[in-house]
Amino acid sequence: MNIDDLPAQSTIKRIAVIGTGTIGASWAAYFLARGFEVRAWDPAPDAESTLRDFIHRAWPTLERLGSVEAGADSNRMRFCKSPGEAVAEADFVQESAPEDLDAKRRLYADIDASLPPSAVLASSTSGLSMSKIQAGFDAASRFVVGHPFNPPHLIPLVEVVGGEKTAPAAVDWTLDFYNAHGKKAIRLNHESPGHLVNRLQAALWREAMDAVLTGLAGVEDVDIAIKYGPGLRFGIMGPFELCHLAGGAPSGTGAGGFSGFIDHFGDGLQSWMDDLREVRLDPDVRSRLKTLVEESVGRRDFKDIAGERDALLMATMIAARTRREEGFER
Amino acid sequence: MNIDDLPAQSTIKRIAVIGTGTIGASWAAYFLARGFEVRAWDPAPDAESTLRDFIHRAWPTLERLGSVEAGADSNRMRFCKSPGEAVAEADFVQESAPEDLDAKRRLYADIDASLPPSAVLASSTSGLSMSKIQAGFDAASRFVVGHPFNPPHLIPLVEVVGGEKTAPAAVDWTLDFYNAHGKKAIRLNHESPGHLVNRLQAALWREAMDAVLTGLAGVEDVDIAIKYGPGLRFGIMGPFELCHLAGGAPSGTGAGGFSGFIDHFGDGLQSWMDDLREVRLDPDVRSRLKTLVEESVGRRDFKDIAGERDALLMATMIAARTRREEGFER
Repeated sequence: MNIDDLPAQSTIKRIAVIGTGTIGASWAAYFLARGFEVRAWDPAPDAESTLRDFIHRAWPTLERLGSVEAGADSNRMRFCKSPGEAVAEADFVQESAPEDLDAKRRLYADIDASLPPSAVLASSTSGLSMSKIQAGFDAASRFVVGHPFNPPHLIPLVEVVGGEKTAPAAVDWTLDFYNAHGKKAIRLNHESPGHLVNRLQAALWREAMDAVLTGLAGVEDVDIAIKYGPGLRFGIMGPFELCHLAGGAPSGTGAGGFSGFIDHFGDGLQSWMDDLREVRLDPDVRSRLKTLVEESVGRRDFKDIAGERDALLMATMIAARTRREEGFER
Repeated sequence: MNIDDLPAQSTIKRIAVIGTGTIGASWAAYFLARGFEVRAWDPAPDAESTLRDFIHRAWPTLERLGSVEAGADSNRMRFCKSPGEAVAEADFVQESAPEDLDAKRRLYADIDASLPPSAVLASSTSGLSMSKIQAGFDAASRFVVGHPFNPPHLIPLVEVVGGEKTAPAAVDWTLDFYNAHGKKAIRLNHESPGHLVNRLQAALWREAMDAVLTGLAGVEDVDIAIKYGPGLRFGIMGPFELCHLAGGAPSGTGAGGFSGFIDHFGDGLQSWMDDLREVRLDPDVRSRLKTLVEESVGRRDFKDIAGERDALLMATMIAARTRREEGFER
């Protein structure tokens, strides 16, 4: 299979959203905002009304973020009675079913029987291997992972990776599709536990947990350390861009840039990396962490913290988008 | 010594800034903006004019960020001929000399001889141990680490930690001082390589480097993964707040919050943490990393990237500050 065997991007009109829990509902809202027709399916009782409520609440946010295309309609959604019905006329499928391999493979058997012959299916799975999900299905070469970061209607990132049976063209096609519709999709070259982003987060979480477990700092102070320190830049620049800038401008007297960074700070960085420790989440450690966090962050009203996160995320994302649209001066 | 033996915070008028390189100049601009008088010293040729230029360029940024107090004056700075002269009438000292223990101890000998009897000195050191810096000096109990995140005039975070000889009251006093003047200062309970923040960053950098070294993802895609993914939240909420929210609202049916997070995601998190690998920055690895980054990020004009970072940082910090001042709805 090459990319010409897959649908031309401009012909994609109808997207099946399989599984409409937290992730799937958010995907449905996003696809509707980008002007697609959505066919949804989920086995939960009240799934349709829950989904319609979610889309209704998400729509004003999508409008404020500038994500709603001209002509998009939040009602252009049909809730279907089976996964087969939802995918039968779909040009693309986003599957966000629970993280249970056996249940997922039963679902994929239904999808496999009804999927149109050239449609690509992307799974939102964060923890399962596509090689295991796809094994034995007729359409396996068109099954990829398209793992979003929650909530997908707000956060641009999607990680794209194929399984053993996935055609490389299907991975390319999926990257093109997401990137053509406002997402920031990245290519992973092989399957890996936690894909990429959860590995990066796990590294940070581990050191944060170690700091409070060893008494280096309190829970609130670790939170402050990130959100009033380096975290201020992590939504603006990636790690390699930041290290490149930390190396200084290349000049006649030195390499500068990332090379300068490694030359000047490599030994220090190595010494810090060498001092990082394993964290084992055994029952005692879990209990200590729960107590430490519940006694600090947990004292605040949950809805207050969530409201603060959502309001600040929206304000900073809109500010960054506006600033990018204005362009940057030298 | 207890905190009553140290100057009342309201009496602090004059700050000595020792070392006016990148970090010290930024501190000087910040202290002037907060209405203090600054006495500066640095041995470099042209240090005074370089410092005055820096302050002049930083001032409009400080004004846009709302950091300039009524009555503050960017010219309320005297450049001194010696460290002794700079500290002799200072109420507080911020030292940002190069990271060389022997050179720093020679400097501290001069400071020790002239420091007023109750003034606290904070060192911006990122890599040296205060226990080693302070050993043997008369004023050792008033020497603390006050490590900023670059650039200090923009980024609120300061890490505060004492050495073996530092009086606990001096640590408390320094935390109070910074926090009373617009910084977000955190307490570290013991000395640690990389303090806290560089450990957290090293954990993230290590996994980012491992991803490109093992071919999991390209340099640009790792950068996108952070800045269009979880990085969008890291300037808003700390790791424990984010995990607490990821656990969902506490309800009748489950713990929710951080406890719910650990119960639901602890095993997955452990499996990702278990798969994290050491990175050894030996010459071959350094060379490969340099090539990978210089071939991607390094192709862009350095000033363009720096301009983008500064513009986006300013836009998002102002947006977050404005949103915080408005308060958050439930």
